Amino acid sequence: MTTDSGQDKFRRKALQVLDAQARILPYVHRLPAETVALPDAQGRILAGQVTSPHPYPHFRRSGMDGFAILSRDTAGCGANHPVLLEVVDEIPCGFLPSVPLTPGTAARIMTGAKVPDEADAVVMFEMTETVRQDGKTYIRLVREIEPGKNITPVGLELAAGEVILEPGRKLGAGEISVLATFGIDRVAVIKRPRIAIFSTGSELLAIGEPLQDGRIRNSNAYMLASQVKEVGAEPVVLEAIPDDLELARQRVRTAFADYDAVVTTGGVSVGDFDIMADLVSGGDVEMLFNKVTMRPGSVTTAAVKDGKLLFALSGNPGACFVGFELYVRPAIGRMLGVPQPFLPEVTAELARPYPKINNFTRYVRGRLEVREGKLYAYPAELDESSVMITIKDSDALIVIPPSSEPKEAGEMVTVLKLPGGSV
Amino acid sequence: MTTDSGQDKFRRKALQVLDAQARILPYVHRLPAETVALPDAQGRILAGQVTSPHPYPHFRRSGMDGFAILSRDTAGCGANHPVLLEVVDEIPCGFLPSVPLTPGTAARIMTGAKVPDEADAVVMFEMTETVRQDGKTYIRLVREIEPGKNITPVGLELAAGEVILEPGRKLGAGEISVLATFGIDRVAVIKRPRIAIFSTGSELLAIGEPLQDGRIRNSNAYMLASQVKEVGAEPVVLEAIPDDLELARQRVRTAFADYDAVVTTGGVSVGDFDIMADLVSGGDVEMLFNKVTMRPGSVTTAAVKDGKLLFALSGNPGACFVGFELYVRPAIGRMLGVPQPFLPEVTAELARPYPKINNFTRYVRGRLEVREGKLYAYPAELDESSVMITIKDSDALIVIPPSSEPKEAGEMVTVLKLPGGSV
Repeated sequence: MTTDSGQDKFRRKALQVLDAQARILPYVHRLPAETVALPDAQGRILAGQVTSPHPYPHFRRSGMDGFAILSRDTAGCGANHPVLLEVVDEIPCGFLPSVPLTPGTAARIMTGAKVPDEADAVVMFEMTETVRQDGKTYIRLVREIEPGKNITPVGLELAAGEVILEPGRKLGAGEISVLATFGIDRVAVIKRPRIAIFSTGSELLAIGEPLQDGRIRNSNAYMLASQVKEVGAEPVVLEAIPDDLELARQRVRTAFADYDAVVTTGGVSVGDFDIMADLVSGGDVEMLFNKVTMRPGSVTTAAVKDGKLLFALSGNPGACFVGFELYVRPAIGRMLGVPQPFLPEVTAELARPYPKINNFTRYVRGRLEVREGKLYAYPAELDESSVMITIKDSDALIVIPPSSEPKEAGEMVTVLKLPGGSV
Repeated sequence: MTTDSGQDKFRRKALQVLDAQARILPYVHRLPAETVALPDAQGRILAGQVTSPHPYPHFRRSGMDGFAILSRDTAGCGANHPVLLEVVDEIPCGFLPSVPLTPGTAARIMTGAKVPDEADAVVMFEMTETVRQDGKTYIRLVREIEPGKNITPVGLELAAGEVILEPGRKLGAGEISVLATFGIDRVAVIKRPRIAIFSTGSELLAIGEPLQDGRIRNSNAYMLASQVKEVGAEPVVLEAIPDDLELARQRVRTAFADYDAVVTTGGVSVGDFDIMADLVSGGDVEMLFNKVTMRPGSVTTAAVKDGKLLFALSGNPGACFVGFELYVRPAIGRMLGVPQPFLPEVTAELARPYPKINNFTRYVRGRLEVREGKLYAYPAELDESSVMITIKDSDALIVIPPSSEPKEAGEMVTVLKLPGGSV
């Protein structure tokens, strides 16, 4: 009889989740880079370090619409001792000063324009009064202006040669803004891993086929394809694997040659028709693990062939989903060179009791809520491994360690955040 | 002199952020739907309600590898009173029972296979012992099995006709899994809004041009394009608007005809060359607002022409970023029919002091951290409106209401979560 203590009739030795994850990573290698145009780099992963080719800002920039002045001209200035400065220049954004500023003069300047080298302050337009006299224009000031006022110094944000972005960084609006600022219009990103997805099982109907009694549609392949895309890789859904060991072996062999990794769903339970279990016990495949002390998905399997990874996930939607997130996600992340390829982990308060006890660690689908600065985790009502419907309403996996006691509301739990959640 | 109290030389009347947001939404209409293949629906927004065409599961499903039995056959069964049941059938996944089960018989059944109509329980394989006798196969049971054991009833997850997904829902792995399960291989999603992006300003260099003194590269257009994509719309970066009112008006007019909305960056400060301020004060454009009591981005402008929205955002990167997130994001979200188009709002504890005081509400770039179930907000060190570099390291906008007192660490603040954060 199989118990949760480790062995079963397929000689499965159960690993802890962290050990299973650790067994995978040595076999994952970062893929090569390719160069893409900056607008196409959205969501891609940076291949190399980027340093600033010049300081930013690269010129002394006015922070206000106003007048560039020599601050010492305002010494002793006050409501009763106004100062008049002659306006001798006008500097719109993108233009350079046309005359040097001398004491007693000022230059009209726009926000973002280059401050004349001689000026050491910009006074806001609204703090000045314009006076026209003898065909000349003056500004009248009634307070002292300190040196440096409203001038952004060269290099305030970045010096030349500073590291701006590290390899492995995902490119979003902020990163793209920086790259554009420094004129980097083509950027080296890691190639998208191409992941083959197989389903196995005679029960599977193609998604467009009419329903049949006792059979289900091949929804896991589409779910996995979506998960693969979300991590930044390219899914390729292949024809379902038939319950024929030789044919299956041949299909998977071809996929290993063509893709960066192979993910299968179905055929890894302890039933009699476990094509994947047979397949990965063949000669040219090295088994990494075929049982993990987790629910759902305890019979998740990983193997290596010719340096490439095969993940054989459960056919149960819930277990398949969790298996992907715990094992395939970090593998793809490493192929992309992401420094932290696992789901982000936070601590939250369990918002309602979780009564199930187990000697395996449970990854319970659930959702997070923030109230008054505190994070609460709500386990889904239906979290059986076979349940599909609660995946869409989950933005977290709540980690329930092995325990013989039900978890009470109010206890602190570790939570793995799923992508796309709003918390 | 301009003060923060509302009026300036451009007769700008400052609105509160919520009022400004409220002025935009009546002009936004949901775009029509288009039908895409399910694998292409990733990240798209569902156009119509989806109800389940059949219950799920649609047949009584075995939750275990084992034997389907009549539970009453095990009445009184125990270690000293074993029961033998003859195995008369074998039901792999996807196959139907081939003979009716009669009292005293059992059917070998796989996880996920259809349970024979006569059976009311499945006993785990590992709880049985196989006995061969007179050319027949029996299982030996040593405990009573309760009715319903290991059988997933029809409709456990969903009855027929239940609402599965509401319109406006973003499609991820969970949603795609559900749609595939119900055989929905083509799905109606809202068309991606097409958003025209203009930069204005003679200071702008194209991203590939060599650096010039006093000029900067057109990074905001790329940043905005990335933000537009992130919301699920299609950005089109158009040629920068020159500082020529008639030409600018013509360009924007053409863009209104061709795109669902127009976003500009630059030219909305109170300087003399404010092409956008002039443009939106023309006859055929209805101004919605041109000043908001916020920092950065107080001179953010929105206008309507021919029922389409124009957003004139600041040329300062920080202000441009925030202006997009507060005004353009919800407008695009509404075009997509998203029920909650604003950035998600949570409460967090301020993790370090924020000393700046202001009579406008500040949207301070920052990052969130969860420790021991509590959410902490860290304001960025550089949060001037002109600062570009901290955008990439921010996953939140910390809302600092108008106040004459510095905010202390430990105070609770409202935080708007930016996309892509890991918390």
